[in-house]
Amino acid sequence: MDKIQTETVRLVEWLSQFGNDPAGGVSRLLYSKEWTAAQQALEQYMQEEGFSTYYDEIGNLYGRLEGSQYPDQTIMSGSHVDTVRNGGKYDGQYGIIAALMAMRTLKQQYGQPLRTLEVVSFAEEEGSRFPYAFWGSKNLAGVAKKEDVQGIADFNGFPFTKAMEQAGFRFRDEPAEPRTDITAFVELHIEQGSVLEHEGLSVGVVHSIVGQRRFTVEIAGEANHAGTTPMGYRKDAVHAASRMIKQILDLAQEHGDPLVTTVGKIEVKPNVVNVVPGKALFTLDIRHTDKAELIRFTDEVTELMQLTASTSGVELKIDMWMDEDPVPMDRRILDVLERQCKEHNIPFKLMHSGAGHDSQIMAKFVPTAMLFVPSRNGISHNPEEYTRPEHLADGVQALTHALYELAYQA
Amino acid sequence: MDKIQTETVRLVEWLSQFGNDPAGGVSRLLYSKEWTAAQQALEQYMQEEGFSTYYDEIGNLYGRLEGSQYPDQTIMSGSHVDTVRNGGKYDGQYGIIAALMAMRTLKQQYGQPLRTLEVVSFAEEEGSRFPYAFWGSKNLAGVAKKEDVQGIADFNGFPFTKAMEQAGFRFRDEPAEPRTDITAFVELHIEQGSVLEHEGLSVGVVHSIVGQRRFTVEIAGEANHAGTTPMGYRKDAVHAASRMIKQILDLAQEHGDPLVTTVGKIEVKPNVVNVVPGKALFTLDIRHTDKAELIRFTDEVTELMQLTASTSGVELKIDMWMDEDPVPMDRRILDVLERQCKEHNIPFKLMHSGAGHDSQIMAKFVPTAMLFVPSRNGISHNPEEYTRPEHLADGVQALTHALYELAYQA
Repeated sequence: MDKIQTETVRLVEWLSQFGNDPAGGVSRLLYSKEWTAAQQALEQYMQEEGFSTYYDEIGNLYGRLEGSQYPDQTIMSGSHVDTVRNGGKYDGQYGIIAALMAMRTLKQQYGQPLRTLEVVSFAEEEGSRFPYAFWGSKNLAGVAKKEDVQGIADFNGFPFTKAMEQAGFRFRDEPAEPRTDITAFVELHIEQGSVLEHEGLSVGVVHSIVGQRRFTVEIAGEANHAGTTPMGYRKDAVHAASRMIKQILDLAQEHGDPLVTTVGKIEVKPNVVNVVPGKALFTLDIRHTDKAELIRFTDEVTELMQLTASTSGVELKIDMWMDEDPVPMDRRILDVLERQCKEHNIPFKLMHSGAGHDSQIMAKFVPTAMLFVPSRNGISHNPEEYTRPEHLADGVQALTHALYELAYQA
Repeated sequence: MDKIQTETVRLVEWLSQFGNDPAGGVSRLLYSKEWTAAQQALEQYMQEEGFSTYYDEIGNLYGRLEGSQYPDQTIMSGSHVDTVRNGGKYDGQYGIIAALMAMRTLKQQYGQPLRTLEVVSFAEEEGSRFPYAFWGSKNLAGVAKKEDVQGIADFNGFPFTKAMEQAGFRFRDEPAEPRTDITAFVELHIEQGSVLEHEGLSVGVVHSIVGQRRFTVEIAGEANHAGTTPMGYRKDAVHAASRMIKQILDLAQEHGDPLVTTVGKIEVKPNVVNVVPGKALFTLDIRHTDKAELIRFTDEVTELMQLTASTSGVELKIDMWMDEDPVPMDRRILDVLERQCKEHNIPFKLMHSGAGHDSQIMAKFVPTAMLFVPSRNGISHNPEEYTRPEHLADGVQALTHALYELAYQA
């Protein structure tokens, strides 16, 4: 391993101690003592490396290298410090470590930047303790409201605001003015998919984050005795559901990238071997990078389901409970990322993100783009999460070069 | 309502008191105090009507009218006295009441029969308290062994043998010789399906009870992130399952009567909206009156699933855990039943039973046939179970005429 590889792995292992879970992986839930320990360790590390540090009111941690020429133009990089329960060592924290390493290297080699460089360790992204995701980036972007979290509690019934206070943070009476100094945000993250691994590449330059629509589909037929009800008399909810699911997934497969469609959950009632099912429920998760295409496909699927319900003699209820638009990344930053990968011979591809990230929140607020590194077998949110040291280092290199162009070039 | 209708309804209501459940319907589980009360009430009623009564060692109750000319040729009729929890008022007990009414009427009109007439109130058929079904008829047929039940207990952990003893019954040290006197068994039962209702008929003459094969099908694919895994990289267990289920049920529908096929139960893992399912499990319940056809269809379905698994890139495991042959009813008794329905203008059809009954046990032991009456909306095992008084009466009439021919004609 070269020096960057060794140092990245060392820092990943170091930060993983905070929340190291005897049951496996890292569990670092928002405002827990493991979370506090990780933020404090990062703060100390930043200070040792010459960053000036501060927290915002909700606990996002920032480390700042003031720009010499344009101190009010901030180039920001980082990711989230929280994990899911029994999560991996890379999701989130690798992006913070990579930003710290990139900025430290730049400072050592080139001294003070022209524009301000700032690393962020977002308090929360996963939504794994409280039913609220993107708390950190939403607060920075000025779209989180304290009313959003004042009524919510964790799985033990512990209130959000109390957890926040115990971790040492307090809402301001008057909300802060949104920041106007951030001119670029770049987030480095693991892919959580296997596209880069399949294609043998080190880095993904993310041009957009998919939009998602999620549905619950309920089919009501008629429960009947499995032996005494001839096929012709049945209103079999599972038969109708199997027709719909097959059609939808076949169609999605034909359609291909960047569309993905998942039927992740099925529930059957009464779910007994010798009763013709009277009810079937399934979920649909449809994602696309293009809003018009996402709408077109979900419309097509809805029509198919309606037709199948009517020919199957069952009742259909389709409930769309999530509708998030795709988020395109900033063209100018993408150009920087592509150019730097090419110039430094880092094997990369332009790709989309099928998962959600802080960048989708930031992109609505400031020019934003993302970099990916491979995830072995596409696994994440799991102790098995792994990225090879050379890929970790290539990610750090790509980010370093990009931040150089963004913060050191006139 | 005519006299027979009124009397049948009265007796159904009377017997339903024993086990009348405040939560709905009748709950009369084997060897419970409700069960004991019902058997004792039936015994007393039989005695009042001039039957000589006795129990066998496990609690089947018999009422006997000795034959004048062929006392060792017994024409038996009856059904089971137990119910499922919150069952209906007709499943089982209607067949006992009808046999009692038929024999009483014959005795009143024609005096002592030439052959012995015997009504049976089988202790158990449903398997709803202990994991053992057909306990009553299996004991009479000599195929129940005390070893079968010595290790089993009910849902409260109460042992079978202890429940039996508390109800006053004890295994003999030496098993009794199987009876050789029974020359005909006729069981009248509700259809538990809606064929007779759909066709506007009062009575079904059951020519066979279906064979059943039950399977659990397990599909192993690969769990993946619903957003970051392109369609082409997926091994989606639900996609493969939907293809199989659709194919199988479409094929069963094309095939039509008397084949029925049910996918009653589906389980998906991890069963989460945003994860491509790594596992899917479903059950198959396939029934047919013809053994060769049952085997041919299950073979065809197995081949289809194997093909689909291989084209879908998933692993397949098919476990057949029930394989019961169809049971044909006795031709001579069927002729009697058909002839009597025709002669007395009872609207009937020859049909099969898609559900299991004591008759399938008895048929392997003695010449056996069944009669059905309609079930409203095909509902059974439910407080909503209902048969119209005129249909109840037509069933009693058909049985009365058949028993007359079997027991009173030389």
